[in-house]
Amino acid sequence: MINRTVFFISDGTGITAGALGKLLEHFPSTSFTQVRLPFTDTLDKIKLAQDAILHATEEDGGRPVVIMTLGNIELRSTLKQSDAYFIDLFNTFIDPLSLELDQKPLRGAGIAHSVMGSKYNDRMEAVNFTLNHDDGMTNSGLEAAEVILVGVSRCGKTPTSVYLAMQFGVKAANYPLIPEDFERGTLPEILHKHLDKIFGLTIKPERLHAVRNERRAGSFYASLDNCRKEIATAEGLMRDAGITWADSTSRSVEELSAIILEKIRHPAK
Amino acid sequence: MINRTVFFISDGTGITAGALGKLLEHFPSTSFTQVRLPFTDTLDKIKLAQDAILHATEEDGGRPVVIMTLGNIELRSTLKQSDAYFIDLFNTFIDPLSLELDQKPLRGAGIAHSVMGSKYNDRMEAVNFTLNHDDGMTNSGLEAAEVILVGVSRCGKTPTSVYLAMQFGVKAANYPLIPEDFERGTLPEILHKHLDKIFGLTIKPERLHAVRNERRAGSFYASLDNCRKEIATAEGLMRDAGITWADSTSRSVEELSAIILEKIRHPAK
Repeated sequence: MINRTVFFISDGTGITAGALGKLLEHFPSTSFTQVRLPFTDTLDKIKLAQDAILHATEEDGGRPVVIMTLGNIELRSTLKQSDAYFIDLFNTFIDPLSLELDQKPLRGAGIAHSVMGSKYNDRMEAVNFTLNHDDGMTNSGLEAAEVILVGVSRCGKTPTSVYLAMQFGVKAANYPLIPEDFERGTLPEILHKHLDKIFGLTIKPERLHAVRNERRAGSFYASLDNCRKEIATAEGLMRDAGITWADSTSRSVEELSAIILEKIRHPAK
Repeated sequence: MINRTVFFISDGTGITAGALGKLLEHFPSTSFTQVRLPFTDTLDKIKLAQDAILHATEEDGGRPVVIMTLGNIELRSTLKQSDAYFIDLFNTFIDPLSLELDQKPLRGAGIAHSVMGSKYNDRMEAVNFTLNHDDGMTNSGLEAAEVILVGVSRCGKTPTSVYLAMQFGVKAANYPLIPEDFERGTLPEILHKHLDKIFGLTIKPERLHAVRNERRAGSFYASLDNCRKEIATAEGLMRDAGITWADSTSRSVEELSAIILEKIRHPAK
């Protein structure tokens, strides 16, 4: 396997550049070492970055990939004197977009991820809401939820809720389906009036068994037999209530969130 | 102010494309309507996207920006028959990177954000750890923390911890500094042996006062006077213990996380 170093060099957080790093998953035969150099906003720091590029080239036996967001033109052109494969987001996106929009871009550092950014406060409010409405913690305030995730314990409700809140500013509550609900044979009473914003998660029994066993090895709760029964009953409850659900077994929180967002924001589709 | 619609069109989650949307913050004089079209993986869905592009053009009086990640070449070229400003991440990044790396890219849908992606399990494990070690909830397992955030109540520890875990897979615990600690005049006992991985957050008194007032209006806890005293004492404790800290008042969780990551992963700098 080939080794390559990827640098994310930014005068701000480097988070936009880092997000593009996800595209490297398309090259599974290369092993990438990822190096973040945020707040690279002086010539001295650019020089340090150039030293690191040189060093990585020697180590890897190939020039690194550099994904960069630098607003300052001098810093940008200095960095590019190094031998590397540059992906320059200002050059590639912001400058052409500036022509398209006929509008000069802001060139300051850290603009993409400042607290001044659009929706920042909404996102933080959503994170607070979600953490306060995790795992059926409280029934109050569910009216304000944009979505309520339901499903058996340990099927992925919490990380998915947190991702929806942090990334998209969605107030996502989540509510576990527990043995009490299975015995009664209906969804928890409090959820009945919120059916229109409930989304279900399910999971394969074998996977749930493995996940629960990590927490409580050998328990009845974690047994494959109990996992099978809980899942079948939970799916029955959701089916009866007309709730859409998705299987979390082989989906990332990013994928689940995209599916849920699609459903709650474009319900017609 | 000009209106423009931005479409994020992907055969997967559209999250990588969406991340680039942050670059639009560089054009504050344009009001962008953001439309996500994930899982656009058939010709029929491409046609629907094209209809939406046409409709947005009429509404805005200008052609939309389309940020796209489509692995399938036929879908890609069909979509591009529409009149829009296209930012094609396959064209711009993956194909040139393929030449640079001398390696064919995977072209399937949803590769960037699958559960098979590198570090996915580490990230989910970190999220669980962080939620279980929020707000000093438990003292057990702090050994496994990569960083422990400390600071007064409501200074931003929780959302920053969650972001560090979700985005970077950092096991981030957080521990509040409370009146008991201020009276005793030292950090909580449990933290003494973890000084090397503690990072402090502070905040301006006026901002803390406003944040706390939203929760408990008119309380002593939220009073400007108490906020001033708590912050001064907390900063004193952190200074005495030699803890690095950052001010969260005008920094986003993305910025704070980048600062903290820099400190814990490259402590020499």
